[in-house]
Amino acid sequence: MNTAGRLYGIGVGPGDPELLTLKALRLLRSAPVLAYHSAADRESIARKIVDQHLPGNQIEVRFHFPRALEPEKASSIYDQEIEPVAEHLAAGRDVVVLCEGDPFFYGSFMYLFTRLSEKYHTEVVPGVSSLMACPVALGVPFTYYNDILKILPAPLPPDILKRELLTSDAVAIMKLGRHFPKIRNILHELGLAPRAKYIERATTTQQRIIPLDEVNPEQVPYFAMIVIPTTSRL
Amino acid sequence: MNTAGRLYGIGVGPGDPELLTLKALRLLRSAPVLAYHSAADRESIARKIVDQHLPGNQIEVRFHFPRALEPEKASSIYDQEIEPVAEHLAAGRDVVVLCEGDPFFYGSFMYLFTRLSEKYHTEVVPGVSSLMACPVALGVPFTYYNDILKILPAPLPPDILKRELLTSDAVAIMKLGRHFPKIRNILHELGLAPRAKYIERATTTQQRIIPLDEVNPEQVPYFAMIVIPTTSRL
Ligand SMILES: C[S@@+](CC[C@H](N)C(=O)[O-])C[C@H]1O[C@@H](n2cnc3c(N)ncnc32)[C@H](O)[C@@H]1O
Ligand SMILES: C[S@@+](CC[C@H](N)C(=O)[O-])C[C@H]1O[C@@H](n2cnc3c(N)ncnc32)[C@H](O)[C@@H]1O
Repeated sequence: MNTAGRLYGIGVGPGDPELLTLKALRLLRSAPVLAYHSAADRESIARKIVDQHLPGNQIEVRFHFPRALEPEKASSIYDQEIEPVAEHLAAGRDVVVLCEGDPFFYGSFMYLFTRLSEKYHTEVVPGVSSLMACPVALGVPFTYYNDILKILPAPLPPDILKRELLTSDAVAIMKLGRHFPKIRNILHELGLAPRAKYIERATTTQQRIIPLDEVNPEQVPYFAMIVIPTTSRL
Repeated sequence: MNTAGRLYGIGVGPGDPELLTLKALRLLRSAPVLAYHSAADRESIARKIVDQHLPGNQIEVRFHFPRALEPEKASSIYDQEIEPVAEHLAAGRDVVVLCEGDPFFYGSFMYLFTRLSEKYHTEVVPGVSSLMACPVALGVPFTYYNDILKILPAPLPPDILKRELLTSDAVAIMKLGRHFPKIRNILHELGLAPRAKYIERATTTQQRIIPLDEVNPEQVPYFAMIVIPTTSRL
């Protein structure tokens, strides 16, 4: 008899609690255990998004994957961090992991998925990603017709970023934070700055849209994106 | 006094009616007019997704943007097609446009947005895109850490497709249909075929996942995607 718990990885969308899917809402209310990524001293964004939807009687488990580490080097830390989730599953309790945006799109849920999905029944629910929410919040149609779209993480080296930027119709640059000055310089150098739109914390109550050249590089959060929409006009 | 109607572009997700967001559900039930893209002889996918959620007393408007035309050439046809939507707005009726997946991600809603959003109050609701739904349905973590992700429409010329495929960590190839044989050949030529996953109509009741070399090129629908997930292992 298999009494192990089930693992659910649930996309909760980019910030607005109304951008949760019906499926995410159903599953997150039904599980005895909620788990989410969160640094010890910080509020979890995913937890905050679902706050108003919770019944209030669930066990909550935090885990934390340090961001600056290369994943390969961090593997044993990650193993440790997911241990409490594995224990609930082994004890027969279903666990819903809350994932900001979509779980498989640069999401930390994948560190749990690769470690637990062979052992425990696992279901993943796609979510509204920041990749879709940011262009919509900016009011810019993003990609049309046969456009090439590239998603580029800001920590990449400048030569790769330039090569990729020069050969795309539309681009999203993620994980800005302290890499913002490098990115802004490159966009100016390539003549792309006039097309680039900056947005922070899209769809949350703290959403801010700032003209690229007015952004204070000291204050760029991790949850910020630069969107370069297509120039195709229809 | 402004009595014009409001235009809503609503992402309804990739197929599963439970992947609708709470916001999409609220708005689509409240408008007097629903509009959606649909060829004369075909069922609208977006309309089918929301069917079970509708109150049943709404006016329905179809429009059709022929796919084979280049958008620039098609502009006057598009102007004509949106005319009934514009008339409802002018008459003071709110119109909800149903958009498969997300509205600004290669969506036909943009042809309405560019023509109507300056004249009428317009709100867009991002949705769960096929870009997120297909990797999740395939069970393959898609992009990690500092991966480059590219979205490539299958109609692009082979030399561009090859150049872009060789310089990406993860790829989604969209709009397959009759371009499938060209794409499969390129993937074999570049040694990418073993990593490429094929899926049709993800999250619908007709979803099919087929090994790349077993796909019958005569039967590849437009709503099919090839996903090449990252090789980063965590
Ligand atoms: C580790 S990735 C996770 C992405 C997430 N799984 C998703 O689907 O949106 C984090 C990056 O996503 C982007 N991001 C996520 N949520 C955002 C939001 N609400 N506003 C702006 N950018 C956001 C930022 O670029 C951030 O650095
Ligand atoms: C014009 S684009 C529209 C994309 C849509 N706005 C979205 O966000 O998913 C149509 C392409 O999206 C992909 N697609 C959309 N829905 C899909 C599904 N349910 N399964 C597989 N591919 C899908 C296919 O590659 C198709 O050719």
